[in-house]
Amino acid sequence: MKVNNTSMRTIWAADDGQAVEIIDQTKLPFAVEIVRLETVEEAAHAIFDMLVRGAPLIGATAAYGMALAMKTDPSDANLAHGGALLLEARPTAVNLRWAVDDLTALLQPLPAEQRFLAAWARAGDICDQDVAMCASIGEHGKNLIQMAFDNAGASRPVNILTHCNAGWLATVDWGTALAPIYKAHEAGIPVHVWVDETRPRNQGASLTAWELGQHGIDHTVVVDNAGGHLMQHGDVDLCIVGTDRTTRGGDVCNKIGTYLKALAAHDTGVPFYVALPGPTIDWTLMDGFDIPIEQRDGTEVTWMNGQDSAGVLRRVRIVADGSGAANPAFDVTPARLVSKLITERGVCEASPGGLRSLYPDMAPPEDPADSEADG
Amino acid sequence: MKVNNTSMRTIWAADDGQAVEIIDQTKLPFAVEIVRLETVEEAAHAIFDMLVRGAPLIGATAAYGMALAMKTDPSDANLAHGGALLLEARPTAVNLRWAVDDLTALLQPLPAEQRFLAAWARAGDICDQDVAMCASIGEHGKNLIQMAFDNAGASRPVNILTHCNAGWLATVDWGTALAPIYKAHEAGIPVHVWVDETRPRNQGASLTAWELGQHGIDHTVVVDNAGGHLMQHGDVDLCIVGTDRTTRGGDVCNKIGTYLKALAAHDTGVPFYVALPGPTIDWTLMDGFDIPIEQRDGTEVTWMNGQDSAGVLRRVRIVADGSGAANPAFDVTPARLVSKLITERGVCEASPGGLRSLYPDMAPPEDPADSEADG
Repeated sequence: MKVNNTSMRTIWAADDGQAVEIIDQTKLPFAVEIVRLETVEEAAHAIFDMLVRGAPLIGATAAYGMALAMKTDPSDANLAHGGALLLEARPTAVNLRWAVDDLTALLQPLPAEQRFLAAWARAGDICDQDVAMCASIGEHGKNLIQMAFDNAGASRPVNILTHCNAGWLATVDWGTALAPIYKAHEAGIPVHVWVDETRPRNQGASLTAWELGQHGIDHTVVVDNAGGHLMQHGDVDLCIVGTDRTTRGGDVCNKIGTYLKALAAHDTGVPFYVALPGPTIDWTLMDGFDIPIEQRDGTEVTWMNGQDSAGVLRRVRIVADGSGAANPAFDVTPARLVSKLITERGVCEASPGGLRSLYPDMAPPEDPADSEADG
Repeated sequence: MKVNNTSMRTIWAADDGQAVEIIDQTKLPFAVEIVRLETVEEAAHAIFDMLVRGAPLIGATAAYGMALAMKTDPSDANLAHGGALLLEARPTAVNLRWAVDDLTALLQPLPAEQRFLAAWARAGDICDQDVAMCASIGEHGKNLIQMAFDNAGASRPVNILTHCNAGWLATVDWGTALAPIYKAHEAGIPVHVWVDETRPRNQGASLTAWELGQHGIDHTVVVDNAGGHLMQHGDVDLCIVGTDRTTRGGDVCNKIGTYLKALAAHDTGVPFYVALPGPTIDWTLMDGFDIPIEQRDGTEVTWMNGQDSAGVLRRVRIVADGSGAANPAFDVTPARLVSKLITERGVCEASPGGLRSLYPDMAPPEDPADSEADG
């Protein structure tokens, strides 16, 4: 997508083919700083310090990290060392483990001297595949936005509410929840996006607002409290959010607060769409409440980062001294509140049958519990 | 309630009987500063600059403001001037207008030399009446907390979620939504309060957390996004919120985000109680959606106040540059989502019939629309 009118990805091979470059997302939205990663150690730090975030982008960075490890020392020992280093950076990131395993399986059989270039090419492929998957989510989701536009008499912009950042910054390009919005914009469908601030880490206000603004998409930031009121008053035509994990039953585990917006959408008759790449479906789980919820540090709630009027970045405490905070990072939206899932293979019901229809090759054999949940 | 182990109100007559003293709430939670108001101009500034906030406290301050006007110049001209000055401070505050009208009606027939003392006594009465009303709300609400305690086998603290600040800081003492919590605490019922941060003005994190902490009540701050997740997991026994305006049908207009919590409570079977003093019922309205919603400045969303690690108060921008914000201040929770209303006269259904049963002297004659809404 565009930054200062120039198309960018979140990660790309440097022109000299010896390093990979990323946008330092910890500096957003206040500065766009490009960081050059030359070693696997630097790649691991970029993941650990969250210069890159979002499952697909973390996976892509890890793949390039493995390649960088092979550049300096393509031995078996360093292949193992590089993988371990990257895995330590964010132990719970599924895409990271997938990328490390994928690269290790590719490189192990190869002679040492072929490893760097093979890894480099594979990392590039992983990025391109992610871009293709997100672009496809975008095309399928665009049709839903087109439908909303037509339903409103093609007379005004489609108002879309989103939560957190499931944009191109979380992937290599396009994003998941925001991909349909970018595709609609490219197709000339006028859109306006309500951007949930997304406390406590403010990914909406800082990342989603920034990327939409850079790409020239009309948007308005609102506090997380406001979405229900907007829906009650007909100011939202549809919601699109991302998901960190989706069960085979269609339950959605996404950023804390997603459930509240889904309830409001259900109560007011606003379609609630969830965009996801197939690999984030957890086929082993039916019930979203079996997904463990990460409890993050309370200081994310009690302290806030921002920029003062002189442009200096500051960290301020916003909660009464002596008051503690709890910080569950995700919540589960039951499938009954999800209107449709938008995947790279198309749009389906949030149900065992819906997902099986798109992923017959991935879904486990049908069982009686699944049919019940299809009700 | 208590501050540093000393019982306080939010407003009180100075010992010399020549001024009124308040807590400067703009300094909370970072400092407790007492401000002495000696003139009607100072009272009006305290209201305008939000040193005092909350409808009942604004009314009490206005009443003392009228008395202070009479201290310096008890003429008819100054009576009118004082009233006008106070009304300008917050033109939409219903309690402010009520207090100015009440004092004007009391003072106009009196000879000038009697006006100051009469006004002073009336302002004190208004404060005492507010305290009595809130204490009564507290007693009635306490019974609901006692019930929840007993229902859980009297074996653990009752977990109560609240939104915004409807505490003693918004009134003269006790508060509305927090009064039942203080009364339960006094009665020895163990309670733990989930405090919604309440973006954008953070009254939960800054005021509710502070006043609960000062009074020794166990509490935990959470972002506004978290409440639904807590309710899904059985971590909330009941919700209590305040209301700015309640229709005769039982619809509740309260701080933005209240509707989302009511939806989650309804979806998860958690009782959702709304505490209110009778005078905030708008008997002229049936449908909450007829209440105009104040749209406040977007900078309340895009900028945040806090204290840095050196103790310096800072104001920081938290939204991407160039992104605008919308800021609706209130939302409407339909009566169907409200379990019970807690008033100074007792507890009732959120319905025309429920409110009429407690306020037969206030309710308008029954009409067919009312009966329908009782369904």
